[in-house]
Amino acid sequence: MKTIPKTLSGFMELYPQEQLVFEKLKNIIIDTYKSYGFYPLDTPVIEYSEVLLAKAGGETEKQIYRFNKGDNDLSLRFDLTVPLAKYVSMRSNELVFPFKRYQVGKVFRGERPQKGRFREFYQCDIDVIAEDELPLKYDSEIINIIYDIFSKLNIADFTIRINNRKILNGFFKYLNLDNKITEILRVIDKLDKIGVEIVKEELSKLDISNDKITEILNFITLNGTNDEILRVLKEKYNYNELINEGINEIEAVLNDLENRSIPTKNYKFDLTIARGLDYYTGTVYETYLNDYESIGSVCSGGRYENLAEYYTDKKLPGVGASIGLTRLFSKLLETNLIKIDDMSSSDIMIVPLCDSYKYIYEINSILKNQNISVNICYINKGIKQRMKYANKMKNKYIILIGEDEVAKNTIILKNMISGDQIEIEKNNLLNIKKIIE
Amino acid sequence: MKTIPKTLSGFMELYPQEQLVFEKLKNIIIDTYKSYGFYPLDTPVIEYSEVLLAKAGGETEKQIYRFNKGDNDLSLRFDLTVPLAKYVSMRSNELVFPFKRYQVGKVFRGERPQKGRFREFYQCDIDVIAEDELPLKYDSEIINIIYDIFSKLNIADFTIRINNRKILNGFFKYLNLDNKITEILRVIDKLDKIGVEIVKEELSKLDISNDKITEILNFITLNGTNDEILRVLKEKYNYNELINEGINEIEAVLNDLENRSIPTKNYKFDLTIARGLDYYTGTVYETYLNDYESIGSVCSGGRYENLAEYYTDKKLPGVGASIGLTRLFSKLLETNLIKIDDMSSSDIMIVPLCDSYKYIYEINSILKNQNISVNICYINKGIKQRMKYANKMKNKYIILIGEDEVAKNTIILKNMISGDQIEIEKNNLLNIKKIIE
Repeated sequence: MKTIPKTLSGFMELYPQEQLVFEKLKNIIIDTYKSYGFYPLDTPVIEYSEVLLAKAGGETEKQIYRFNKGDNDLSLRFDLTVPLAKYVSMRSNELVFPFKRYQVGKVFRGERPQKGRFREFYQCDIDVIAEDELPLKYDSEIINIIYDIFSKLNIADFTIRINNRKILNGFFKYLNLDNKITEILRVIDKLDKIGVEIVKEELSKLDISNDKITEILNFITLNGTNDEILRVLKEKYNYNELINEGINEIEAVLNDLENRSIPTKNYKFDLTIARGLDYYTGTVYETYLNDYESIGSVCSGGRYENLAEYYTDKKLPGVGASIGLTRLFSKLLETNLIKIDDMSSSDIMIVPLCDSYKYIYEINSILKNQNISVNICYINKGIKQRMKYANKMKNKYIILIGEDEVAKNTIILKNMISGDQIEIEKNNLLNIKKIIE
Repeated sequence: MKTIPKTLSGFMELYPQEQLVFEKLKNIIIDTYKSYGFYPLDTPVIEYSEVLLAKAGGETEKQIYRFNKGDNDLSLRFDLTVPLAKYVSMRSNELVFPFKRYQVGKVFRGERPQKGRFREFYQCDIDVIAEDELPLKYDSEIINIIYDIFSKLNIADFTIRINNRKILNGFFKYLNLDNKITEILRVIDKLDKIGVEIVKEELSKLDISNDKITEILNFITLNGTNDEILRVLKEKYNYNELINEGINEIEAVLNDLENRSIPTKNYKFDLTIARGLDYYTGTVYETYLNDYESIGSVCSGGRYENLAEYYTDKKLPGVGASIGLTRLFSKLLETNLIKIDDMSSSDIMIVPLCDSYKYIYEINSILKNQNISVNICYINKGIKQRMKYANKMKNKYIILIGEDEVAKNTIILKNMISGDQIEIEKNNLLNIKKIIE
């Protein structure tokens, strides 16, 4: 009896060509994180349930993969933030602060599976944690990183929408709506999806007067250039200390982004960005692909006062961002924003037409030493089979080596798209990178 | 009430400096795999228990992390071979064969924790799978990859010990000991650890006559150069078809390794290498660090006839190797074969001594465009604090930028080890890579 091989639904498992593209995106993210001097971090997939669920509740508890092994109550991590909080509070005496770390890894949520939802998915997180004061320049550094990543990914035009929670909190404090702020922000967060009218309806369901609803909508739909919005805020909405603090902070962040020469088309002060969670306390941001807003935010984050209050009394403020790569990848496939077909697992393929392997390996070494990845086709079934394999492996260029070439110390370089081929002397292979790129 | 943050025992969680070194090793392995044109593969951590345990039994079943979620009986993968078998048999009509893939990921085994044993650990696997015939050149390609990796890791001198299971199987068939072959190989596998005398004892416990034990020991302790062992085998031990097939195969592999110019000191024909599992059917190999044999094999593998016989009737022969990176890393730390202290998370650090950030970011961009990773210290607490941070981040070089430098369009490059510092003009920063490397 054979067992039927199958993969769980809600778990992404890609074809080789797809996986190549996925890895390419993942490596762009990781390389960008590294280029800013962030440490890698790798925490266990399995943790004590008690530790993972120290703060969580509601949905998280329902979705978590939890089980016993021996005497231990264990769970699979459902995000990378709680493990970071655990890690930093366990080691706050040894770490160097500000502690800059990235972590790219799988997290697990047993959601009801639906299109575009995954039970196992990659999060690509980056955070800076301080022990006391965390300068605002780290907020703009994270935004700069987001800008770098989406520029390099080169998927579509994008906008990073930036706000500051202190402005929102100060505004709602002025309206005496502090006690409903989480619910209000949850509604505002949906403005783009549900539109002004339904937002009004939902706000009135929260028992907010029509006057205040009008004030709220006037406020969050303030529009214009970043400077114009800032000016209106300073003139009209300087209601209290908190709101003024928020205005100063976002002004500093926006100025710093300008100093960093990030194109102004790629970021925008946007008062509707709230990031529902009460976790965030300062700068917040979301990233949208301009012509594909229905995908939702592709990279979000912000600043928080207390990374790990459920573990430690130490104040550990931080700022970070996260990319849900598995979901993003599936959305990009769906909208045809990435192509799968044109990538190969190697820069070039060598197809031997004779048995002079000493020579073939010598050619291979010359290429390898130039950091060219080489797939050698060892299929010994005749030229037709070898060429068929070469075609399927999507290499744009292949190298053919037969007895003639061995005798003449040359190789044949064949362009698989045009069909053109040229003979190159072994000694001239040091320039091959220019040709095949 | 705060929750005490803690990590499960048997789960590796490294300090930032350690993690940097771990990632360096992991990337050398991955980059080498990629340089041979292998596809990346990423299968789920969670699978149906029925699928994962199709073949397993005994220890595996006891160690596996298994649990129910909804109606599903689920398990965490305990290796990367079973997921590969699943993957290939599910997609045997779509994959291009030979299918070359690597997978680097965590696997889980709930062993009793002991020193050097991990319950969550990285496996770095590489395999080539064919649909029918798999040329022997893939065996030597895998050995070449092992050679490349351990050369680049540059930890210690190493030897890849190579054998062929057909030689062993043919030999024991000749002795009429086919029925005890698994037990015998298990004993032989331990020869290095337990010595000749205990091997003799254990073999006699298997009810093998003293004459045969002598024959076995004469055979497996055959010594000399690869060519000498081959000659003796051909002259004295050409007992049957199977053994002759094995001799021909290993001769072909050894010849091919010679063609690949792998130094002869790095590989050796060794008849004691058995790889206990009945899974392997041809070439087998283990890799040892010469002066640290007690660490055990650091990279093992071989050729098998049937990757996925428990899923499919299709014959899927393959050849591969695996590195248990978590265990290797912990052993290297233990034996001081790797140093943790001298790595930084960035190539260089910029320590601003003024607020001219437009200029500072311009310098940053010039460096970044040369693929230099840069950590900018934004701590705004005075020069002493900034320099303290710079010291702790282990950067060999830092760049200081004050108002003077901004005015003169220069930077100060300081060597943190010697204390020397030089002034460099902005326009000359395109050569900085040569200095800081």
